[in-house]
Amino acid sequence: MAQTPANSEGRSIWKGLIETYRSYLPVTEDTPVVTLLEGNTPLIPVPAIASQIGKDVRVWVKYDGLNPTGSFKDRGMTMAVSKAKEQGAKAVICASTGNTSAAAAAYAKRAGLKAFVIIPDGYVALGKLAQALLYGAEVLAIKGNFDRALSIVREVSEQYPVTLVNSVNPYRLEGQKTGAFELVDVLGDAPDWLCIPVGNAGNITAYWMGFGEYHQQQKCTKLPKMMGFQAAGSAPIIAGVAIEHPETIATAIRIGNPASWQRAIAAQQASGGEFNAVSDEEILHAYRLLASEEGIFCEPASAASVAGLLKVKDRVPEGTKIVCVLTGNGLKDPDTAIEHSNNPCKQGIEANLRSVAAAMGF
Amino acid sequence: MAQTPANSEGRSIWKGLIETYRSYLPVTEDTPVVTLLEGNTPLIPVPAIASQIGKDVRVWVKYDGLNPTGSFKDRGMTMAVSKAKEQGAKAVICASTGNTSAAAAAYAKRAGLKAFVIIPDGYVALGKLAQALLYGAEVLAIKGNFDRALSIVREVSEQYPVTLVNSVNPYRLEGQKTGAFELVDVLGDAPDWLCIPVGNAGNITAYWMGFGEYHQQQKCTKLPKMMGFQAAGSAPIIAGVAIEHPETIATAIRIGNPASWQRAIAAQQASGGEFNAVSDEEILHAYRLLASEEGIFCEPASAASVAGLLKVKDRVPEGTKIVCVLTGNGLKDPDTAIEHSNNPCKQGIEANLRSVAAAMGF
Repeated sequence: MAQTPANSEGRSIWKGLIETYRSYLPVTEDTPVVTLLEGNTPLIPVPAIASQIGKDVRVWVKYDGLNPTGSFKDRGMTMAVSKAKEQGAKAVICASTGNTSAAAAAYAKRAGLKAFVIIPDGYVALGKLAQALLYGAEVLAIKGNFDRALSIVREVSEQYPVTLVNSVNPYRLEGQKTGAFELVDVLGDAPDWLCIPVGNAGNITAYWMGFGEYHQQQKCTKLPKMMGFQAAGSAPIIAGVAIEHPETIATAIRIGNPASWQRAIAAQQASGGEFNAVSDEEILHAYRLLASEEGIFCEPASAASVAGLLKVKDRVPEGTKIVCVLTGNGLKDPDTAIEHSNNPCKQGIEANLRSVAAAMGF
Repeated sequence: MAQTPANSEGRSIWKGLIETYRSYLPVTEDTPVVTLLEGNTPLIPVPAIASQIGKDVRVWVKYDGLNPTGSFKDRGMTMAVSKAKEQGAKAVICASTGNTSAAAAAYAKRAGLKAFVIIPDGYVALGKLAQALLYGAEVLAIKGNFDRALSIVREVSEQYPVTLVNSVNPYRLEGQKTGAFELVDVLGDAPDWLCIPVGNAGNITAYWMGFGEYHQQQKCTKLPKMMGFQAAGSAPIIAGVAIEHPETIATAIRIGNPASWQRAIAAQQASGGEFNAVSDEEILHAYRLLASEEGIFCEPASAASVAGLLKVKDRVPEGTKIVCVLTGNGLKDPDTAIEHSNNPCKQGIEANLRSVAAAMGF
């Protein structure tokens, strides 16, 4: 009754990223695989968005918010934590107030390791840390800013048996590249365009690695144009200069000095793609559109990919096949949903059929 | 490049519940399939929980919180909304303040239908309605209680071209029974025990239907004992009498008079199973255990299945294979996570290596 690769009907059983893509990943038979069966997220057609572009384009969203902790970070973390455990670490550490801390905590605790999350003191939005806390992370707030937190986690990881799982951990991108593999496995080839939110620029880098490796193995016949979208208030790659005080409602991509900046530019150039900025208004428009037309609830940052596609829609060639990556689950940020819904609640309706029917428009 | 049943490697591509289990569902070629690629949720081994029981038992959780709107309700709603659309409805309606409203809104809007949600006036926890509002549901608050809301949605659905998608909709259970199919497909047979939270008692009924149908088709060799768990403050089936004012932290199963009461008892009796009550403390203990030992974040109500299993652990036979159903995503209820985490944030640590290392226990 163990999980087997295929059931009696021949339907394959998903065993998580590492088992599925083992030959593409830096693991051996000795690597203890730490998995929550991440990956295998739905690739959902979005016909209402496609129809706004016209020209017989087809558009899908890769809904990575349906990973176990609610974001694409799980793809990297299954690798980072498996390798940390293989190397004998007793704990992992990161500086993060969002999706990374949740993923790090979940995978570390599953592996039987401790998880430490370092944040700047005075950071009060405990909601963002709810997941990490419940997963059992030890959250330490230091008297210093986020940059100081980042340098301290690096120092700790150099001096103690604690593995750093921030984006500098090289296994993170290895895991994340499997998003590209899944797209090709479902579509039968690479899409023509990949639209993706860009914050720290790790995910665009990882997708490009994935498409390249699959292409080399002749799993796909082409490579997509990499279309990266930054939030306008946090767009260092478009500005060509680091942004000291990045601002955007899309907090998951509010990063002024991306770690993978140069590799992301290399991916864009090699693929004939583009970087563009989208305003918070454009992001929120796409966020509402995805929910109210397609039934898909993503984090605001995720909607940057769709906002960007709609922004450049006049330049989309006839018949283009496009995938937009949705990196996180909308449930991560309920406040934005309440604040930016167009549908307020109608109060005080008399409790009878006629009044309710009238309020419904009958 | 359309989605195909299998890719070049023979790995099957998930096309949603209805396409996958079409021959078991009341659909025809004319049914417009409204899908967000729900289902196919991970069945995750939980070795730390199994080790608390010992006796070589094996335990998995069916993590249905990874459905598109974050709960098992999507399984029923893909069916209910597809049938509503087939029958020419222009809108759907439900009385709900939680997971049902989110699922109804998402699937209705994806189908191009309107979605109406009726709630009691003065219901202020807008957070629970954040999803439904963003999906574009029209939320109407009536001057009356929840029972009045339920009777009004029924009246509306009888008088207007609006389909009722509350639990009385028969297609809901048809969709939900696919949870049982997926368990058998992954495990190769039915488990020995199915542990499941019981509120309205629809899901336990649906799982029993699913196991029965699969057994009839010889897809499994046995039927599981159905082990239903209610919250102690909301346990009408255990009490044998409706509870006028049910109370529990597990709001998703806070129901005093279950719609599928008799069918749930029939399932329990036919399977040789049991109903038991678990306290809020036991639920919260299981909720924290799942997160901090297994890396799995569920709604409090979901944890009732694991709490119940731990409660009856002395009666689990040697070598039993057990599945606990986790019905919803923990992200639905961040407040409970913050309030009931055991790991408070340590504040005010000096921003240097020595202080941070000391705070970490080095």
